[in-house]
Amino acid sequence: MTTELPESHRDLLESPLFAHLATLRSDGSPQSSVMWFASDGKRVRFFDTRPRGKYRNLLRDSRVSFDIQDPDNACRTLEVRGQVESMDPDPGAEFYRSLQERYGLAVPVFDADVRVVIVVQPKQFIAVDGGLTASETVALTELLNKLNPDE
Amino acid sequence: MTTELPESHRDLLESPLFAHLATLRSDGSPQSSVMWFASDGKRVRFFDTRPRGKYRNLLRDSRVSFDIQDPDNACRTLEVRGQVESMDPDPGAEFYRSLQERYGLAVPVFDADVRVVIVVQPKQFIAVDGGLTASETVALTELLNKLNPDE
Repeated sequence: MTTELPESHRDLLESPLFAHLATLRSDGSPQSSVMWFASDGKRVRFFDTRPRGKYRNLLRDSRVSFDIQDPDNACRTLEVRGQVESMDPDPGAEFYRSLQERYGLAVPVFDADVRVVIVVQPKQFIAVDGGLTASETVALTELLNKLNPDE
Repeated sequence: MTTELPESHRDLLESPLFAHLATLRSDGSPQSSVMWFASDGKRVRFFDTRPRGKYRNLLRDSRVSFDIQDPDNACRTLEVRGQVESMDPDPGAEFYRSLQERYGLAVPVFDADVRVVIVVQPKQFIAVDGGLTASETVALTELLNKLNPDE
């Protein structure tokens, strides 16, 4: 777990992949949603519409976590934990249209007046390789060394 | 949102895809993890090892949510909200080995003694098509009908 984005997993945040975003419902239970996103290296931006559950969740509790999975290597993932910094209107759905371009899927936008940009400030990054975090890899290596002391 | 698995999305729960599992940390904030799973139609099973954060999270608060994304149609997803029913040891890593077979990735198991089977009872299913839930599709259709009353 680090407070800086690990270089080894930077590509996952820069590519037009999918973020699986966990938010908190009114009773404190988790909700999981598949999201488009864009990152400028400092902040991660999502869109939502005001009638949706996620938006209402984030008005109440701004804490989020999301993971991104490498489509070419399923055991390589990045979890990002953070906090919503702002949720502002998206006039003319400008941000949403930029995401459509990033993901290569342009459809007409009928609900620009209720669209918002969710800006998340990352606090912690958890990089996973081979299904294990860095500390789990160290623990496994120590265990293997104990089992095979001569190697 | 339904309490029964929608037939339209049953394949996602039956296929060896990835579940993006949201759990709750000690401070109530969410954590997101990419997981193998298996479902018998009634319960969904995951594995974990006792030293890991997810396991400790679930000992404190058994509420979970996970989503599964169709790899061939990114806008088709299923969210499952539920509760952990049991977390029992996995003697000889028997369950874990069955998951290795399901996912076609067999590696040696060194930590069978700390492996557990997490059994989740689903409570709610949220099927998403074209990026929209059923109720969102109805709302959008109504909006479009208002905008184009003659069609």
